[in-house]
Parts: sequence; C-alpha cells; structure tokens
Amino acid sequence: MFMSAKQSQKVGLPPGSLIYITEEEETEIPESEKKVTVYAITYNESGYEEKKIESINDLKNLITDDPASAAAATAPAASAAPTTWIHVTGLWDIDVVRALGEKYGIEPLTLEDILSMGQRPKTEEFETYIYTILKHVMFDDDDKEVINDQISIITKDKTVISFAEKSYNIFDPVIKRLKKDGRIRKYGADYLTYALIDVVVDNYFLVMEQFEEWFDEVEKRMVSHPEKESAGEINRMRTELFLFNKAVWPLINVTDSLEKSESKLIKKPTRVYFRDVQDHVTRIVESIETGRETVTGIFDIYNSGISKRLNETMKVLTVISTIFIPLTFIVGVYGMNFEYMPELYWKYGYYACLGLMLLIFVTMILYFKKRGWY
Amino acid sequence: MFMSAKQSQKVGLPPGSLIYITEEEETEIPESEKKVTVYAITYNESGYEEKKIESINDLKNLITDDPASAAAATAPAASAAPTTWIHVTGLWDIDVVRALGEKYGIEPLTLEDILSMGQRPKTEEFETYIYTILKHVMFDDDDKEVINDQISIITKDKTVISFAEKSYNIFDPVIKRLKKDGRIRKYGADYLTYALIDVVVDNYFLVMEQFEEWFDEVEKRMVSHPEKESAGEINRMRTELFLFNKAVWPLINVTDSLEKSESKLIKKPTRVYFRDVQDHVTRIVESIETGRETVTGIFDIYNSGISKRLNETMKVLTVISTIFIPLTFIVGVYGMNFEYMPELYWKYGYYACLGLMLLIFVTMILYFKKRGWY
Amino acid sequence: MFMSAKQSQKVGLPPGSLIYITEEEETEIPESEKKVTVYAITYNESGYEEKKIESINDLKNLITDDPASAAAATAPAASAAPTTWIHVTGLWDIDVVRALGEKYGIEPLTLEDILSMGQRPKTEEFETYIYTILKHVMFDDDDKEVINDQISIITKDKTVISFAEKSYNIFDPVIKRLKKDGRIRKYGADYLTYALIDVVVDNYFLVMEQFEEWFDEVEKRMVSHPEKESAGEINRMRTELFLFNKAVWPLINVTDSLEKSESKLIKKPTRVYFRDVQDHVTRIVESIETGRETVTGIFDIYNSGISKRLNETMKVLTVISTIFIPLTFIVGVYGMNFEYMPELYWKYGYYACLGLMLLIFVTMILYFKKRGWY
Amino acid sequence: MFMSAKQSQKVGLPPGSLIYITEEEETEIPESEKKVTVYAITYNESGYEEKKIESINDLKNLITDDPASAAAATAPAASAAPTTWIHVTGLWDIDVVRALGEKYGIEPLTLEDILSMGQRPKTEEFETYIYTILKHVMFDDDDKEVINDQISIITKDKTVISFAEKSYNIFDPVIKRLKKDGRIRKYGADYLTYALIDVVVDNYFLVMEQFEEWFDEVEKRMVSHPEKESAGEINRMRTELFLFNKAVWPLINVTDSLEKSESKLIKKPTRVYFRDVQDHVTRIVESIETGRETVTGIFDIYNSGISKRLNETMKVLTVISTIFIPLTFIVGVYGMNFEYMPELYWKYGYYACLGLMLLIFVTMILYFKKRGWY
Amino acid sequence: MFMSAKQSQKVGLPPGSLIYITEEEETEIPESEKKVTVYAITYNESGYEEKKIESINDLKNLITDDPASAAAATAPAASAAPTTWIHVTGLWDIDVVRALGEKYGIEPLTLEDILSMGQRPKTEEFETYIYTILKHVMFDDDDKEVINDQISIITKDKTVISFAEKSYNIFDPVIKRLKKDGRIRKYGADYLTYALIDVVVDNYFLVMEQFEEWFDEVEKRMVSHPEKESAGEINRMRTELFLFNKAVWPLINVTDSLEKSESKLIKKPTRVYFRDVQDHVTRIVESIETGRETVTGIFDIYNSGISKRLNETMKVLTVISTIFIPLTFIVGVYGMNFEYMPELYWKYGYYACLGLMLLIFVTMILYFKKRGWY
Repeated sequence: MFMSAKQSQKVGLPPGSLIYITEEEETEIPESEKKVTVYAITYNESGYEEKKIESINDLKNLITDDPASAAAATAPAASAAPTTWIHVTGLWDIDVVRALGEKYGIEPLTLEDILSMGQRPKTEEFETYIYTILKHVMFDDDDKEVINDQISIITKDKTVISFAEKSYNIFDPVIKRLKKDGRIRKYGADYLTYALIDVVVDNYFLVMEQFEEWFDEVEKRMVSHPEKESAGEINRMRTELFLFNKAVWPLINVTDSLEKSESKLIKKPTRVYFRDVQDHVTRIVESIETGRETVTGIFDIYNSGISKRLNETMKVLTVISTIFIPLTFIVGVYGMNFEYMPELYWKYGYYACLGLMLLIFVTMILYFKKRGWY
Repeated sequence: MFMSAKQSQKVGLPPGSLIYITEEEETEIPESEKKVTVYAITYNESGYEEKKIESINDLKNLITDDPASAAAATAPAASAAPTTWIHVTGLWDIDVVRALGEKYGIEPLTLEDILSMGQRPKTEEFETYIYTILKHVMFDDDDKEVINDQISIITKDKTVISFAEKSYNIFDPVIKRLKKDGRIRKYGADYLTYALIDVVVDNYFLVMEQFEEWFDEVEKRMVSHPEKESAGEINRMRTELFLFNKAVWPLINVTDSLEKSESKLIKKPTRVYFRDVQDHVTRIVESIETGRETVTGIFDIYNSGISKRLNETMKVLTVISTIFIPLTFIVGVYGMNFEYMPELYWKYGYYACLGLMLLIFVTMILYFKKRGWY
Repeated sequence: MFMSAKQSQKVGLPPGSLIYITEEEETEIPESEKKVTVYAITYNESGYEEKKIESINDLKNLITDDPASAAAATAPAASAAPTTWIHVTGLWDIDVVRALGEKYGIEPLTLEDILSMGQRPKTEEFETYIYTILKHVMFDDDDKEVINDQISIITKDKTVISFAEKSYNIFDPVIKRLKKDGRIRKYGADYLTYALIDVVVDNYFLVMEQFEEWFDEVEKRMVSHPEKESAGEINRMRTELFLFNKAVWPLINVTDSLEKSESKLIKKPTRVYFRDVQDHVTRIVESIETGRETVTGIFDIYNSGISKRLNETMKVLTVISTIFIPLTFIVGVYGMNFEYMPELYWKYGYYACLGLMLLIFVTMILYFKKRGWY
Repeated sequence: MFMSAKQSQKVGLPPGSLIYITEEEETEIPESEKKVTVYAITYNESGYEEKKIESINDLKNLITDDPASAAAATAPAASAAPTTWIHVTGLWDIDVVRALGEKYGIEPLTLEDILSMGQRPKTEEFETYIYTILKHVMFDDDDKEVINDQISIITKDKTVISFAEKSYNIFDPVIKRLKKDGRIRKYGADYLTYALIDVVVDNYFLVMEQFEEWFDEVEKRMVSHPEKESAGEINRMRTELFLFNKAVWPLINVTDSLEKSESKLIKKPTRVYFRDVQDHVTRIVESIETGRETVTGIFDIYNSGISKRLNETMKVLTVISTIFIPLTFIVGVYGMNFEYMPELYWKYGYYACLGLMLLIFVTMILYFKKRGWY
Repeated sequence: MFMSAKQSQKVGLPPGSLIYITEEEETEIPESEKKVTVYAITYNESGYEEKKIESINDLKNLITDDPASAAAATAPAASAAPTTWIHVTGLWDIDVVRALGEKYGIEPLTLEDILSMGQRPKTEEFETYIYTILKHVMFDDDDKEVINDQISIITKDKTVISFAEKSYNIFDPVIKRLKKDGRIRKYGADYLTYALIDVVVDNYFLVMEQFEEWFDEVEKRMVSHPEKESAGEINRMRTELFLFNKAVWPLINVTDSLEKSESKLIKKPTRVYFRDVQDHVTRIVESIETGRETVTGIFDIYNSGISKRLNETMKVLTVISTIFIPLTFIVGVYGMNFEYMPELYWKYGYYACLGLMLLIFVTMILYFKKRGWY
C-alpha cells in the first residue's frame, strides 16, 4: 500500500546487486508480457535513424560517445556529431541492463536503482553521466487509481539511455518530433533529456484533469444523493492524490538541480528549459494542493450532512411523538373503566373529546411550524 | 476546478508552440467578444501620444527601443527619450502576439506563457527584458466567485508591453495619470511596470472588502437563521479564499525579485516602489489568513450549532415522553378489564386517579425546570 | 473585519498621495474629537523644555537636526546638542503631516504610510531617517475586543517625530521620565525611540493579562453552567487573540532589524535595549501561543460537553421508555375485550398483574443501576 | 495562566529598574519563607571551602575574579587559581542582588532579568560574563501541575554566581561532587556552569517519568471506566505538557549557543559537555512530542467513546421500542369497543392474539440478533 | 511509554559515569540471558579470521589500529593492512565496555552513551574515531508493537567496534559476505561501517511491510465488521508508526553527516554509499508519512461509521414509531368508553377502522420509501 515495491527482497545483499524488483506480484503478469524491447535512435541535424536492437550482441556494437566527446572537445566542428538515444522498455532481462551498464560505464548502484521500482524521483551527477529517475503517472478511471511507471534516464555527452518498466508509448511524441526534423535535432543529449522529462510532466496535467472530473462527479453526487456517499470514497480521493503528489513533488528538486547543475553535460542554453519544466511541476503541485483543499471540503460537507440528516430524522420522530403521545394519553383516560366518570355519560362527551384533541393537534402543528421544524 | 486552464491540449507539442489556452470553454464565448485591441502610448516628460493599432503592419512600424537605448547609453541627455507602452487586450489573434514577439525579440517560451492562461504569478529576467505574470482578480458578487485575468508585462529599456486576456479597463487609472502629466511621465519603463502592478494589487483590497462583506453576511445569517446555513456555502468561502490566495501570494516573491533584481532594466530609485507593493501584497496575504481563521470559526460554530439543535430536539422529545409515558401507563392500568379491581368501583376513584396524574405531571415539570431543560 | 482600514479608497491614486484612511467609520466620530495636538519637547542632559505647537507656522520655526548633526560630526563636544521630540496625536489635519514631512525631509511614501491606518508593524531605513510603525493595543473589557492604534516613529539624528492616531496618553511615562532628569536625557534620539517602543510593548503585558482574566472567567463558566456557553464566544476568544498576535508578532522582526541595523542613527550602546524589547515581544508571542492552546482546549471541552449532555438526555429517555413501554404493553393486554380471557375473572388477577409489573419495574431499575446509567 | 508573572507591574518604569516579580501571589507566601541564603564556595584541585554569607558586608569582602583573571592571562601557572561559586537562594532581598551586581560588574538589564520570574530560558554574552536563564521544573503529583523555578547563572572567568527563586536543594549533587574531590574540581567556572545546567536537565527526565505515570493511569481508567473520564483532565494533560515544553525547548538554543560560543569564558574542552546536555534536552523535547501524540490519541478515544456509548443507548431504546410499539398497537386493537368485532367472541381469540404477539416478538429478537445489536 | 529508558537513574551523577540503563525492567530478564558475547573478526583482501573473545584479557591482547594507521600514513602499500571488527552483543558486563574504551581511546561520554539505551540516532566525530548510534527495529506481530535495539558503532582507521544490546543476529549477512571474499574485504573500516548501517536500514523495509499487512488487515475488518473496530487499535497504529518514525528519521541527518563528513576516517569512494543509504532512509520516512495518512483515513472512516450507524439506528426507531404511534392513537380512540360513540355501533365500523389504519400504514411506508429511509 504505502511502499510500492518489495524492497525487502534485498535485505542482506551487497549493494549493487542486480535484482528486478517490481511493484506488481510477479505471478500476476502473464509470461507473454515479460518482453523487453530496445530501440537505438541516432540523429543529428541532417539525419535520423531508428534501429531495433534484437540481441545483446547488437547492443555491444553500438558506438559509445566517449571517444566522440573527446573529439568534440578538441574540434568545435564536431557539434554535428550525432546523438544516440537508446530506449529500453521492460526490465525483465537483467542482462540487457548489465550489458548497457558495462558498455557505457554506468555504476553498479545506478544499475541497481534502474531495476528497483519504487525509487523516489531524484537526479544524481556522476563523472561521466547524469542519472535521473522520474515517475510516469497514469490514472485508471475504472478503479480510480493512480498507476506509476518508473522512468530512468542516463544522460551522457552524446548519448541518452532511457528505461521504462512497462511498454507504454509515452515517448512517441518525442520520436515524432525527432522524425519531423524539428528544432530538437539541432540540440544534443541534454535537450533530449529535457524533452523526455517534459513529456512525462505534460502528462501530469492530463492526470490532474482526470482527478478533477472524478472530484466533480463526487461533488455532484453529494448534492443529489448525499446519503449514498461513503467516507471510503472520499478517503480514497485523498489517498490517490497523496500518492500522485509523492510521485510529482520531488521533481521540483530534480528540475532545480538540473537547471543549476554544474555538470558540463547540461549546456547553458538548455537550462532555461529545465526552469520551464520546473514551472510546470510547481503548477501541478499547487493544483494537488487545491485538490486536497477540495477533498477536505467534501469531507466536511459529508460529515455535516450526516449530522444534519440525523437531526432531521430526530425531528420527524419528535414531531410525531410530541403530537400523538399526549393525544394517546387523553384517549387512554377515557378508556379507563371507572364506574363513576361523568364525561362518559355526557351526550356530547365524545365530540368534546375529539374537539379537544383536534385543538391540541392544531396547536402543536402551529408551534412546530413556528419553530421551523418542517 | 483546481486547474484553471486545459494545459493538456499541449501534451506532446514542442516547447514554444503558440496556442491560446483559455480558462473558459471556447464555445461559450460569443464570436463578437473575441476581439483584440492594441494601443500604443508614447510619452516623455514633455508629451503624451496615444495610438490605436489597427493591423499587424501598424505594429511593425512601431519603433523598438533597442537603438534608442543604445543612444541613451552614450548620450546622457537622451533621458528624455520617450517611453512606449503597448497594451494588448484579448489574445484571440496569435499573429499579434507573434508579431510583437518578433519585433521586440521575445523568446518563444515567453510567448507561449503569455498565451497560456493558468500560469502562476512569476517574474523572469532575460537578457533584454523582464517578463512578469500576475493575476487581475475580480469577485463576482452574484455567484460568489473569484475570477482571474492573467496579465503579462514585458519590461524593456524604453518599452513596456502588457497583455490582458479580457477587455477590462484595469489600466485606465494609469492612462489617466499619464495624460495628466504627473510624476509618472518623468520616469521610464521600470516605473510604468511598477504602476501597472500597483494598480492590480490595489484592486486586491477591493476584492478583500467584498470577501469581508460576504463573510459578514454569512455570519449574520448564522445568528438569525442558523438552520438555513449550509456547509456548502462555508466550504465555498474557504475555496474561493484559497483561490484568491493562490493568485496573490506568489506576488510576494515577484515583487521581492523585482526589488532585488540585478538587471539594469530596474533603476535604483524605482526599487523602493516595488518594496511598497510588496508591503501591500503582504497585507493582503495576512488579511486572507485572517479570513481563513474566520471561515474556520464559522464552520466550528456551524457544527456546534448542529449538535446543539439536535440536543434541543432530543430534549423536547425526552420531556414529552418522560412526562406522558408514565401517565399513559396509569390510564392503561385502569383500562384493564379485571373483574375484581376495587378502585374502579370507588366513587372518587376517577378523581383520585386524575389527581395522582396531575401530581406526577407537576413533579416532572418541576424536575425538568430545575435541570434547566426548557 | 479582517482588513482594518478601507485601503480601497486609494485604488488608482498615484503612490505618495496623502489621504487619511482610518479604521473607523468617519461619520461615527464626532467633529469635536477630530482635533490634532502637537507637542515639541527639547531636552539634553542639562535641561528640558515642552512646547505646544498651535499652528503650522510654529511648526516651521522648529529647528531641524540636520545642521546640528553636521556640527555634531565635526565637534565631539556637540554630544550635548539637544534632542527634539515632536509628538503628534490625531491625524485629521493632513497639512500638519505634510508640513512636518517637508521640514524634515520625509519621503512621500512614508507620509502616505503614516496616514494610512492598517499598516503592518515594520521598520524601514532611509538615508536620513528610520521609519518604524507599530501598534498600540488596548483591550476593551466590555465588548471583549482588541483595539489598535497605529504609532509611527521617525528617528533622525537629533529628532524623533512620533504620530498616534487617537489621543491616548501612552507616552506619558516617557514624558515623566524625561522631566525627572533620568538616565534617558543622557542618551539621544535612538534611545528615545527605544523608550517609546518599550512603553508600547510593556503595555502588551497588560492586554495579555486582560485576555487571561477573560479566559479564566469563561473557563469557570464552562464548569458551572456548561450549557450556557456558546461556540460564538469561544470563537471570539480565538479571533481576538489572532488579531492581537497580528499586531504583535511582526515586532519581532522590527526589533531585530533595529538591533542589527547598520544605520548610523542607531548607536551601538542602544542596541542591547532593542534586544531586550525583542525578548519581551517574544514572550508576548509565546503567551499568545499558550492562549491559543487554551482556547483549543476550551473548545474541545465545549464540544465534548455537548455530546455528553446529549448522551445524558438520551439516557433519561431510554430509561423511562424502556421501563414503561413493556408495562404499558401488559396493561394493554388486560385491556383487551376478548370474551374468553380467564385471568380477568380470577379473583387475584389484578393483584397478580400489579405484582408482575412491579417485578419488571424493579428488575429494570436494578439493571440500569448496574450499567451505571443514573 | 499563560503568563507566569505579572510583568505589568513594570509598565512605564525605566529599563534596569530592580523589582522582584514573582509568579505567586506575594500575600500567599508566609513571611517566614521570605528568607535569602547565600553560600560562597571556593575550590581548586587541592581544596574546597564553603562559607555562608550572613550580611551584605560579607559579600563585599569576597574576592572578584577580575584581577585573578588578569594574572591568569600573564601567568599560565595560575590555572590552579581557585574558582568561586556564589549561590543565592530566595530573591526577597533586592539589596543582595544589587550588591552582587555592583561587585561583579553585572549590567542593570541582567539584574532586572534575574529578579523577574517568567523569563524565557536564554543565554546572553556580555563582555565580562555570560548570563544564562533556565527553568528548574517540578511536577506536583497531587495537583497534577508543573511548577517552575527560575535559575539564573552568571559565568565569569573564575566565578559563577547562581540564583534560584525558591530554596530547593537542586544543586546539592554538585556540592557533593565538589566535596568529593572529583574531576569537577580540576575544571573551572565554565565546567561548573555546565554541571549546574546538567543537574537541571537531568531532573527533566524525572518530570517526564511522572508525566508518563499520570498518562498511563488515565489510559487505564479510560479502559475500565470510560464514562468517568472527563475532557477536562485530558485537556489538563495537554496544557501541562505544553507548559513543560515551554520551559524546556528554548534550552536547545541555549546549549547550542554555549557550545558554539565565541566567548573566551567557555574553554574548548568544555564545549563537548554542552553538546551532551543539548542531546539530553533534544530527547526530552522528543519525549514531550510523543506525549502530545499520546494525549491526542487519548482524546480521540475519549470522543469516539462518547459517540459509541450514545449509539448503545439508542440501540437499547430502539430495540425496546421497536419490539413493544407494534405489540402495544395490537393489544390496542383488541381493546377497541366496536360492537361487531368477530375475533373478540371467538373462543381461542385471546390465545391466538397472544400467539401472534409471541411470534412477532421472537421474529424481532432474531432480527436484531442478526443485525448484531446486542 | 514515551521515554524508552529510565534516564532518571543517573540524576546527579557526574557525566561519563558508566551505568547500564536498559529499556526493560531488569528484574524481568532471566539471569541466563544476561550474557555478553564478543567476536573479533580480522580480514583483508587475502584473508578472514574470526575469534571469540572469552575474557577481558583476550580483549587486551587485540591489536589497536593506531600504530598500523601511523604506518599506513607513511607506506601506501599498507592498504592491505587488515581491518578488525569487534562486535559486542549484550551490555551486561560494564567491564568489557570499559576495557574496550581504554584500549581504543574512547571518550567517557561515548562509553556512557553506549551503555544508555534510549539515545537518539546520531553521529559524532572525535579526533580518532566516529561514533554512530542507530536503532535496529523489530515489529512484534503478536503484540503489534515496535521493539528497539540500540546499535552503537565506533569507526576508527582500521577498526570497527559495534555494540548491540540484545543478541540478535542482525549482522550475520555482513559476516557471510566477509567470509565469501566479496568486494567488502577490499574496502576498509568505513565501508564496513556502511555495510552495518545498510543492514539495519534494509531491515526497516521489512518492518514497513509488516506495518502494511497490519493496516490492510484493519482496513478489511473495517469493511466487514465496522462495529467491532475500536478507536484503541487505530490509535495504536498511529502510536507505533510514530515510534518507528522516531527511530528512523534522525538517520537522515546521520547518513548526511557521514556522507559530507570532513573526517579522514571516511574515504571519498565510500561516501556515495552513505548517500545511497540516505536515499533508503528517505524512502522509509516517506512510507511512514503515507502510513500516517492511511491511519488518519481509517480513523475518519471509523468516526463517520459511528455517526452513520447512529443514524441508521435512529431511522429504525423513527420509522417504527412514526408508523405505529398514530395507529395506536386511533385504536385508543375506539377504546374510549363514551356512551355515545356512533361509530362503535355501526356494523362495519371495525372494518372501516382497520381499513383506515391500513391506509395510513401503506401511506407511511410509501413516504419513507420515497425518502429513501430503508
């Protein structure tokens, strides 16, 4: 519930042990879905090439950026050196991750984090790369549930490696833009990193809108059928919002660190874009804050509603009881069997008694009306 | 509800894409209201000129301040160089924004922000201009609702460009002061920026007073007709205050950044004015804080009121029941049909019975009176 | 309510416009109270002189400290140069404020603040003076209401100008000490500023004690007559404490700024006194914090009390009903008119029935006694 | 209540006025308890001497450390110069305080603080001494009340002067250790200061344990006799804990300042001890935090308990009413006097009626049993 | 309860007094469990040796690292100098601690802390060693209780000394890794320190999962048998989570200090591991935060549930009463004994009366159905 992955599988293992820790019960996932796809996209201003990596050998034949970057340092013309983006979806095959790690000089601790779902969004600078974790969030409209997908991005000088746990097409917009020869191809790996983060963050607005629709729906139901609402659903609203916030707000620090990073891997013109992403994240976090206020408000209304309905129930009981109990007493009096009760033998006794009761009845009704009880 | 504009329209678009994202349903706005007006006001100490821009060509003929500022740098006498204020109301025509952006060298990300409603108030310094977003807030007295209008201000050396989404006349006081040859014409673009922000902030006091009236009205109603009050309205008070706060409080940072800005665009004598605005914003934020305390107080009173009225309802029921239930029992006893019940045949039985019941009745009444139950 | 003065009167006016903005309805104040008194007190170690200023001309003839201070800078013996304290009570005559402003070189923004009630306590350093706003607070014991009076203090090198809105004699203790040739006359304008602030702060202890008495009284009433207490008064306690806090706590920053001020107007030996005042303010703020805890406690007791009394009401109802409803059923049984009911014709039927009912009654009573219900 | 001493007695007095402000009503204290005792203890590694000071003249004959310290500065061998500790209990005789102040060069503001109970714990560095205020706290087990005693410590180079308001023997453990020729005699005035503070802080653990016992007792009572618990006592728990916290937590800053002090009066080897004390204070503050959680928990249980018992009361009423009201209706039907009611004349009518009622009764009982109502 | 150890045993003792302060009642622990075991493990890249220390003499023969470290400083080849890890379980024999302290130059204050359970997690740097306290936490599934074990770690240049209060095998995974000739043997004392802390922190994930299971179980019970749930258990959930948090969150500062330590004892390559541990601790703290939200949610649902069930109880009562009270009145009317009541003698009177009552009954039922009352 509040820990998304079974971290305890690793108790006692040395750090850097590569184990795939998923949030879902492994047995629940059909074997057919446990596939891994790796794409390698190479582009520069003048060209774009997409290659599907079929085996680990293919992986090993990919060029690394280190010599290129060395060249880049000496020759300024090397700015047209292509950028390579390797995108891995599915983490079932640890060998893929290990092979990439070896090829691109990624630290064991980083590889371990890539494979352990349930990390907090964070960014870490290493000597030759920057490692960023963030969360792709989806909202399951049927179960009213927030679903996380952990995205890892390794940013090197000329290479970006991204990992996603499940095979969602989140980065399709980026691929489309790369194909269309847009501005994005002029920039390097740092801008691509920004573009990937930006797509993930833009998606939060969608999630936020789904939350909004849900909350609107609950609010409307509260007005029309207050008694059908349950504290459980309101609590669920709060919980899901909380989980969403947990996935989003550490990104403020992540984007801030990237903007202010002293690493040479983030070039100056790209920084303004990270600031822009930070703005977006801040707005999402503020919207979540507003959402929380809304939930608190709905819960207050819900509770007041329960009290109010109790009040109304009791008023009905009280009005009925208060009117009829005295009347029942009166009819009881004349139901007594005393031998000597003069009223009983009076010709108009019955009608007088009925009249008296009518009078009491009307007086009571008027009294309650005046008190505004119905 | 808690996100004011449909940001999701932009998911997957490259940054800097110019799309007008409004808070309202576009279909709800009659075509006749979708007009854009642009005014260009040029003034210096000795003169004032106002020109309505009718077409994009007109726009292109406006002078930019960059050469002028270059001149200003060399010739100190150039301090009388006129300041130009371009005020755009309505953002329906993206071409206008794009043309201004090209002419005055505004970054695509800034143009994107100008067109996206739902931004947070912020200020950003660029090399040749300062970009400030703030929120003009109105309070709709009928719907008891806070309405936002996003104001963008671009401050250059000799030029101010302001954008407002809807055609409100908020800047009329500034225009009036400019016409009247006041102090304002002696100062440059930075002071004009201050004057525009000041007008927006001064308006917050009006909104706060409307909130106050609303709250007073609710409080009075709570005293006179507590049962008519609804948790919904109290929650609405809280929500609207929250939305108002969201529009106002980021301005503390905005004005602080402007006061302490290291940009050459904000001259030293103008800084004290930004501090003054900051004081005002701080007071508004404190008033909102007080308002929140008030709402909490009203809600507490409301809830206690519900409990108290339940208590009173139950007291009525209890008093009536407690008095009549034993009496009804007694009359029931003498309504029994046992053959051998000596009291029934006693001549004064009936009166004795009535007397006994009167005694019980009076005792009960006295007892409840002593307990202070009515 | 939560904004103490109608700031909105100033919307659209240029900054520095002098308008007197009071917290009270102007029409409510009798014309006779709208008087302004100005005293000029000049003192040094060897003498003390008090002069009532009757007209604006008198004001203009007062000496300013600027030449004196210039002299002081060259001649160390000038330490005996007299200090002038101008104390203005009542702000009805804007001309007085304007004349003082011109004479002593006070900025328009400062003059504007002096005339606008509802400022937050603050201190601002200008080149030739320090401007301090603070709140004199009184507690109206009849209306249980906190009343504010805004005090402005201008500290120059040899001159202190103080403004108070209403003609209270708060500064009388300072005048008395000045007359008595105390230590105070050895020090200059900065120490006088301290003395004025100290008097205002000392007064907060008095207000705090009045709050304490009020709260004690309410607590006692809660114990003796819990049902008479109202959520309204408890809320009032919270609100007034909140308003008091709002007037007091910004003073922590004010005194801190004065202690750490880099201005030459605050001499080093005086700083320790501002630290002392800050200590006092901190204690007041902590007492307010304690007061809030008290109010929260009282409110919790109040709410529990309501629930508890409801519980007791219901117990009375339940005990009476539970005892008599079965008995009434029994007498009803023997009130049925079936022809063949053998008990009715049994000689001791009536007594047996009465006995049965007595048995039930006693059993019930014992049962409820055991459950501790009364 | 929330201000522990009547500070208002000092309104209008010049700063540094020496008045003894106690927390208790002076009239309540018998004259015989208003005694002042002063002990002067002189020790170094090789000796220990204790002297009771009987008169102010005795006081004046005590040596001050200033010449000694001057000597110490020149002669390193002077490290064996004795340390003097003057401990004053009872503050009734202002002359004692004044005499000490004059003799040891203590500032008037410090003397004023020594005499005013109700100060916050703080430490202030002066040129020739460090002034520390802290609170000795006792817990009165009968009244369940936290009692404060203000301790003031003046630390000079070779002298420590301590003041306690009431004659408790809190510093006896320190005296014992001094007598026993422990490590403490090797160190100087700074270590003695630490030892005094440490004794006070160690005592907080005792108070905390008393709180714990109290809370355990209340919790046990809640389980066994929930209806006897009162919101008043729970609130008292919160209040007393709050007052304890108020006395303790400023000590974190005090010990931190002493550890990081730049004064030459605190030697480097002593600093680690102040860090140790700070650790202890932090643990106390955390325990108080835990205590607050406990109180909140108890209050929640208390409130839920009230609601639950109301629920049970109502269930009893509902079960009884729901069973007997329909039965009473049935017997009422057969109590009607219609001439033509065939059941009445049926031979087994009565038994059939009783049977019907038994059936209803049993059905009802089973129904309520199924719903788990009793 | 909220202080885990009887610190008060030490009131008045000089600092550095060695007393074993346990959290448990000493009398409750059987003498047979009061054993102390000490293991000394020596390893370097090429070898591993484990020795059980049987007596204090054995202890004294252990080598210290000080000369070795001196050698290490001069000879870089000394990197293969073995690392010694002394692990003490059980603290019953103070002499063991004292002997170790003397041998390895540990300060008395540190020894005191090692022996006093109930310390906060902290790290302190001394000249020759770093002292770290942390808490091993277990969750007792039967009593639903968090149990603490205090772990102290002394890190020297070539030696690590660890102390655990109770004989749990928590460090077994580290011993196993050391034996297996893993990476761990290449590193020195700082990495071993990290490995020990890491094992303790990894264990927190297990505890968190146990909390999760408990909470899930309670939530399920709330849905199936809401009336059986008790505020007591919910409060217990909150309390235990709070205690867990208290043990965990100071570790954020501990690991941060270790990562950023300026001590030469922590080598640069090890720092990244402490950052990794800090990540883990942060995630645990966030999970605890989520857990708290869960508890709050459960408590809200619980309270709403009580109110809702009261509402339902009252509805049953109201429906039954409202239906039968008027009917009972009607039968009462025809039970009156007036001589002249024409309906009584009408042939179909009885049936008409029954019909009328049926009509009322059906109307009522329909009315309540419409209001959605059952």
